Amino acid sequence: MGDPGREEYKIQSFDAETQQLLKTALKDPGAVDLEKVANVIVDHSLQDCVFSKEAGRMCYAIIQAESKQAGQSVFRRGLLNRLQQEYQAREQLRARSLQGWVCYVTFICNVFDYLRVNNMPMMALVNPVYDCLFRLAHPDSLSKEEEVGDGSDSCGGSWSLAQLNTSLQSMEVDCLVLQLHRVGEQLEKMNRQRMDELFVLIRDGFLLPSGLSSLAQLLLLEIIEFRAAGWKTTPAAHKYYYSELSD
Amino acid sequence: MGDPGREEYKIQSFDAETQQLLKTALKDPGAVDLEKVANVIVDHSLQDCVFSKEAGRMCYAIIQAESKQAGQSVFRRGLLNRLQQEYQAREQLRARSLQGWVCYVTFICNVFDYLRVNNMPMMALVNPVYDCLFRLAHPDSLSKEEEVGDGSDSCGGSWSLAQLNTSLQSMEVDCLVLQLHRVGEQLEKMNRQRMDELFVLIRDGFLLPSGLSSLAQLLLLEIIEFRAAGWKTTPAAHKYYYSELSD
Repeated sequence: MGDPGREEYKIQSFDAETQQLLKTALKDPGAVDLEKVANVIVDHSLQDCVFSKEAGRMCYAIIQAESKQAGQSVFRRGLLNRLQQEYQAREQLRARSLQGWVCYVTFICNVFDYLRVNNMPMMALVNPVYDCLFRLAHPDSLSKEEEVGDGSDSCGGSWSLAQLNTSLQSMEVDCLVLQLHRVGEQLEKMNRQRMDELFVLIRDGFLLPSGLSSLAQLLLLEIIEFRAAGWKTTPAAHKYYYSELSD
Repeated sequence: MGDPGREEYKIQSFDAETQQLLKTALKDPGAVDLEKVANVIVDHSLQDCVFSKEAGRMCYAIIQAESKQAGQSVFRRGLLNRLQQEYQAREQLRARSLQGWVCYVTFICNVFDYLRVNNMPMMALVNPVYDCLFRLAHPDSLSKEEEVGDGSDSCGGSWSLAQLNTSLQSMEVDCLVLQLHRVGEQLEKMNRQRMDELFVLIRDGFLLPSGLSSLAQLLLLEIIEFRAAGWKTTPAAHKYYYSELSD
């Protein structure tokens, strides 16, 4: 977990002024507008998939710093409010920018992964996270051919599972399996029934009349094996999915 | 395991004379030609898939009876010789009768399951059994559309996995997963590397250009999950594969 004293967060992609804001939020949270900081972090996460993959760590560090300094949770409240707003408008976000949507799911999963209350994941995030993953496992996300964006988003090269080259076409499938690798086991502990339902959708994906791409099939097959093996990769599965494909 | 004193073997499908031969082989093996008995059992197994699924039990009982009475293994030698002959001619058998071939694989797997030496499966059968399963997982077995036979074989209704209706088209896939359910775990213990290789073929099946039928996809998906979960069916997988499909 984060140590607010160490400035190893991925903030190089922010402009100089915002970098300063974030550094201050980590060191002296009372000196900045923490609601603004929360919005800055969410805005940036929706545009930068690399950042969104690790942003939860920085959020946790700011929450810890604020709690220690002032015993307050202005930042956390601001963060969760903003996450909820984006959650409610997620279909619009998805329609507007597939990459923004995928970045959002990455971000909320990462926040779920890092934010702890009494060393437990936040219950309030369990269902929103599940809802996002269900959306990624929806037939039109699994099989639809995605249009290539205008190139203004910066996510292009970041969505890869080991040696696999991921196209925009399977961006949502790729995000789904990445998040399940990362938080699937924790999510299942919080609500096994929803995980069972999610895997019904995933298995059904193989039967879609529109078909899956070969890459999507492999990604889904791998996550099915991964969960069945108790959320781990067996050596044989590792060899199959992560070595042979690169040949 | 079989008790040669109890005549509960599935011999009703034999003619009266052969039934008598088998009953004598079980009670007083020295009184009959045990090599002939072995041939009768193999011949019948190749024609009757219901019998071939349980024939190993009867073979084991005759072996035990002969060993107890005379300390010999004429029957076992005859059985293994005949199994080897059929094994060597398996491609011809498959070309001649797909149902005969599937019955053969069922039989050899059942013999592997029942015959024990010092309470261990017979090493001599491990590679032949694997070779048969590899043949079933070969691309042309997984994806090819099979022609319907002449109806003279009696296997029609016996090849079903729970509620699934199996067509001739997926007969080999169906046999593959049935045998893996039955002897997969034991086989893996005898030779893990070959099991890993077999599952590479099975996973590759999803990527075949000619495609798999929906039923074949489900069957293979189920066996992949089954093995990944340590050769057992999780409750969620059971519900998915064995309940929902019947809706």
